[in-house]
Amino acid sequence: MSDPLCLHYAPDNASLCVRLALEEIGVPYQEALVDRRTQTQRSAAFLAMNPNGLIPVLETPHGPMYETGAILLWLADRHRTLLPEIDDPQRGAALQWLFWLSNTLHPTLRMLFYPRQFGAARDLTQTRLTTQLDLLAAASTAPWLDASAPSAQACYLAPMLRWPALYGGDTDWFDLGRWPRLEAFARRCEKRPAAVRAAKAEGLGPTPFSAPHPCNPPFGSAT
Amino acid sequence: MSDPLCLHYAPDNASLCVRLALEEIGVPYQEALVDRRTQTQRSAAFLAMNPNGLIPVLETPHGPMYETGAILLWLADRHRTLLPEIDDPQRGAALQWLFWLSNTLHPTLRMLFYPRQFGAARDLTQTRLTTQLDLLAAASTAPWLDASAPSAQACYLAPMLRWPALYGGDTDWFDLGRWPRLEAFARRCEKRPAAVRAAKAEGLGPTPFSAPHPCNPPFGSAT
Repeated sequence: MSDPLCLHYAPDNASLCVRLALEEIGVPYQEALVDRRTQTQRSAAFLAMNPNGLIPVLETPHGPMYETGAILLWLADRHRTLLPEIDDPQRGAALQWLFWLSNTLHPTLRMLFYPRQFGAARDLTQTRLTTQLDLLAAASTAPWLDASAPSAQACYLAPMLRWPALYGGDTDWFDLGRWPRLEAFARRCEKRPAAVRAAKAEGLGPTPFSAPHPCNPPFGSAT
Repeated sequence: MSDPLCLHYAPDNASLCVRLALEEIGVPYQEALVDRRTQTQRSAAFLAMNPNGLIPVLETPHGPMYETGAILLWLADRHRTLLPEIDDPQRGAALQWLFWLSNTLHPTLRMLFYPRQFGAARDLTQTRLTTQLDLLAAASTAPWLDASAPSAQACYLAPMLRWPALYGGDTDWFDLGRWPRLEAFARRCEKRPAAVRAAKAEGLGPTPFSAPHPCNPPFGSAT
């Protein structure tokens, strides 16, 4: 299968999750920088691809596609990797976590980074994020957290463990060390060759998930 | 395939989305009422199935599963219905909307119904819900909104068009008539035999999606 894929990305944005998956799969892809400094994600051309004005968009042979979780799922299924196949007994739990990352953890991070969009109380958001990571770290149904093999869920989660230490104003409250299982996951992820390539492309440094530093990308900016 | 499925539900909760899909597929299922009046969703037995304490849970041959969107996807794929198959050119757009319903529209409704959990400003949530439904109603990439055939996305959306008219305090601000395409979708959905059966099981009346009334369920309660 030769897919002329093009990832519309900004460094250290949710497009990083998709880049990790593309690098793990090893499928060729082009990239198009979305310049956040000029709010390109709000331009008419970008909104025509994703009316939500959110990064990433993946251009596919069937048109542009958005929603990070959906893109990860679509790529994984088409390439028969990164997720259990449809009749695999592990499929249900994998999908469950992919949706949870998308509808629970990711929205909590959005509320942490953009509290004014929601009129949300910052302390409640911090508490909720902590509770959610407590739940994830304790989950017996998430063997992918401890696996050496990559997964769609891992590609989604790893960047989300990085962001609370960097974005959203005061970040001192956040300490990944609170969750040894998640810290070990982060360390395992960032050693993978696919992650090293992605970190290089977006200027994330040598320990992007376990001990993140602000990104220093060759092109564009994170915010 | 004979799946001993059991839907843990409360009337007019997100379990309704899964019930619609089960009825559309025609797969036999048992049901277990979660008594919200006694906060059964917070009991140890329920939290062992879903540590988030959220309804629904679907018991499957491979263990209990949660996340409405994941359950819909899992059911649709296993029964080869309600979603385009993996190599279908329409698959990407269908997944995109399933995730959007799960991570954008559904969380906005949660913030509308449980503002204190988020410390969220009610007026901002109402504005965001309106903007999101504007976006959905204008989407050229959502042909399932106009289709006579059922879909996983339709099963997810139809109940979500009902709830803002019923829950979350003052509901006068919400008028589905603002979006003729969505109102036509709601009318089409509620006429389907699967929806009529689901409405009967949960006491939703004859126009549950286009002109909803508070539910009058034979068992349990919505809140």
